[in-house]
Amino acid sequence: MLKSAKQAAALLAVVDTKQKNEALSLLALAIRYRRENILSENDKDVASACAAGQTSALVDRLTLTPSRIEDMARAVEHIITLPDPIGEVHDLSIRPNGLRVGRMRIPLGVIGIIYEARPNVAADASALCLKSGNAVVLRGGSDAANSNRILGEIIQEAVVKAGLPPASVQVMDDFDRELVLYLLQARDLVDLIIPRGGESLIRFVDENARVSTILHYKGVCHVYVDKDADLEKALPIVLNAKVQRPGVCNAMETLLIHKDVAVSFLPLAAQKLVESGVELRGCEKAREIVPGMKEATRADWEAEYLDLVLSVRIVDDIDMALKHIAEFGSSHTESIITENLSAAGRFLRDVQSSCVLVNASTRFNDGGELGLGAEIGISTTKLHAFGPMGLRELTASKFVVLGNGQIRQ
Amino acid sequence: MLKSAKQAAALLAVVDTKQKNEALSLLALAIRYRRENILSENDKDVASACAAGQTSALVDRLTLTPSRIEDMARAVEHIITLPDPIGEVHDLSIRPNGLRVGRMRIPLGVIGIIYEARPNVAADASALCLKSGNAVVLRGGSDAANSNRILGEIIQEAVVKAGLPPASVQVMDDFDRELVLYLLQARDLVDLIIPRGGESLIRFVDENARVSTILHYKGVCHVYVDKDADLEKALPIVLNAKVQRPGVCNAMETLLIHKDVAVSFLPLAAQKLVESGVELRGCEKAREIVPGMKEATRADWEAEYLDLVLSVRIVDDIDMALKHIAEFGSSHTESIITENLSAAGRFLRDVQSSCVLVNASTRFNDGGELGLGAEIGISTTKLHAFGPMGLRELTASKFVVLGNGQIRQ
Repeated sequence: MLKSAKQAAALLAVVDTKQKNEALSLLALAIRYRRENILSENDKDVASACAAGQTSALVDRLTLTPSRIEDMARAVEHIITLPDPIGEVHDLSIRPNGLRVGRMRIPLGVIGIIYEARPNVAADASALCLKSGNAVVLRGGSDAANSNRILGEIIQEAVVKAGLPPASVQVMDDFDRELVLYLLQARDLVDLIIPRGGESLIRFVDENARVSTILHYKGVCHVYVDKDADLEKALPIVLNAKVQRPGVCNAMETLLIHKDVAVSFLPLAAQKLVESGVELRGCEKAREIVPGMKEATRADWEAEYLDLVLSVRIVDDIDMALKHIAEFGSSHTESIITENLSAAGRFLRDVQSSCVLVNASTRFNDGGELGLGAEIGISTTKLHAFGPMGLRELTASKFVVLGNGQIRQ
Repeated sequence: MLKSAKQAAALLAVVDTKQKNEALSLLALAIRYRRENILSENDKDVASACAAGQTSALVDRLTLTPSRIEDMARAVEHIITLPDPIGEVHDLSIRPNGLRVGRMRIPLGVIGIIYEARPNVAADASALCLKSGNAVVLRGGSDAANSNRILGEIIQEAVVKAGLPPASVQVMDDFDRELVLYLLQARDLVDLIIPRGGESLIRFVDENARVSTILHYKGVCHVYVDKDADLEKALPIVLNAKVQRPGVCNAMETLLIHKDVAVSFLPLAAQKLVESGVELRGCEKAREIVPGMKEATRADWEAEYLDLVLSVRIVDDIDMALKHIAEFGSSHTESIITENLSAAGRFLRDVQSSCVLVNASTRFNDGGELGLGAEIGISTTKLHAFGPMGLRELTASKFVVLGNGQIRQ
């Protein structure tokens, strides 16, 4: 399987944009056309998951509906509209000896996607990998075995119909743990592994991979309300960062407030948050301002709640805020609310997270929102990619040089 | 050591350019000022290496001379003149909701350099890491223990004098193999390992590293003389690629010649190459044109001679040349000699090597020659960097976002 993926990757690398878009277009069509087929296979997975007593969260992630299938087809169609990164030449320069030097984007090769229950990953990831000229091997969770198998079939049919090699997209449907380990360690055959799922999956991949991986563990994201914050901007941002979608990695988990504005800001913010169903856990000073708040412990500063819970800490100054973030943050997303240029500049410079914002919600750390068009994952490690990854992050750049007979002296 | 490196890295990340250049300037000064000291420590290493019966190539790499020490100081001074990549913002865009999105370059963190006998790596790599805001841990070969220790001392003194943390540059001078393994596996403390040395060192690092690595095994580089080559350009390029410095990774190892120009090109090229001391090993067709040439076997197509030996193959067309390169190349450097635009375009697109050239010598695949200013190594794997790595390749880019109260809908 991996050998055929590698062969397919070599062919895909030089396929033109028109043919890749044709494959995506056929794929979107096939997803719609075979909707009933997908739904009935998905029903089997959902039934098994319910029978096995899986959590309702997992069952929800697993379940496909006609509208979710339509979203899948639309996501594929959206990727058709994005520019093809392959062949793009950037960083052009002319050397003193007349050599014209540039860098040309090429695919990475074979990409392994290891994921859990969400069946839509199969279509999304395949479309992004195909558009960027990469072959992909999909290994979903056993919970979604039937859904992934039918989706794999549909994708492969579309790929073949467009004249691309069938091994461009392959689904591993044997759930033997040894096979995943083999995938994680096949350095000669696989160029990159992207795991998508909960912390235990990421940890398993991190601990066992010998192939390069791009991963993110968790998002312990902070909003810092500075002493020079415009509190009328701060309130909607804080609410949005916490409650708009609390279960995702770019939701705020800890609110830091400068002591000079704590008395004027915290009571109102706490009221609005509590009205939205948020449970607050505060440091001692926060609890003096808003009595009745639960006490925050060290475990709270470290927690990724992914839920309507928020820890609140009053800080003496921006230094203490930066120190808190350096100690407890997860290099994911942090935002400062301030009208002060120096404070904003310092926060942007000193916070070493994948996305650092001024006067905006942490929820914007997302490939679509930041202008990448689509996202194959997010990286909180710095090698190769940091933050949301789009098509460009699925490429490498080789040096290309045009000469006219130059030799080195 | 690694923990203090990590702390130093956090401080170095926000040091301004002036202070980093000050440290480099003090370092260049100290290298010159303590020249006798360096020479006498180096003498000890050279004496031990000779006594241990090491190869003359190793002794040469190990030996420092007044002029090599001056080169070291100048290389450090040259890095002062290069632009500081840290804080540079690129890929700016404004989103429809008014968010201003950019990407800001930040250091990677802690970089481990594992190298062999060349003592100049200590100064070069330290200067590049410092300029890009990274802390560095140097682990040289035991052959150069005394040289590396004194250089480590000198570098650390300069760093401290400039007000930077002493752990910005550290030398591991315990040669216990377990310690190298620890360095290679300290994922929480080290961000990148760059090995520099021969194939067995690279293989050791590759097999044992759990930290991300950037490496290159070998350079089996090709020049393909196309049927539409200007043979007057081809001859000097072929000679330069083979004989100007045969012992380096970007020297040509195999010459591919289109059958239509073989009879007019090969005899003259062979004569010039043999006059330069090159031993030729050819395919059957090449040996028909130039009798007396030794026969090339599969081992020759795979060989990185690093010496005045060249394998020669006559190919039927560009497809056969591309196939040969895909099968036997090492993703390092390949050049086509042609006046034909389609052939040049196809070669540039289809060859997936770190540097692909048209009408120029393979010897140009070098950070300095390609305009990077300086080089910390070269990558033949595609993740993070592909080809020569300069200061920019020692950075990551975080997303920075300027808002005015935006929240996500």
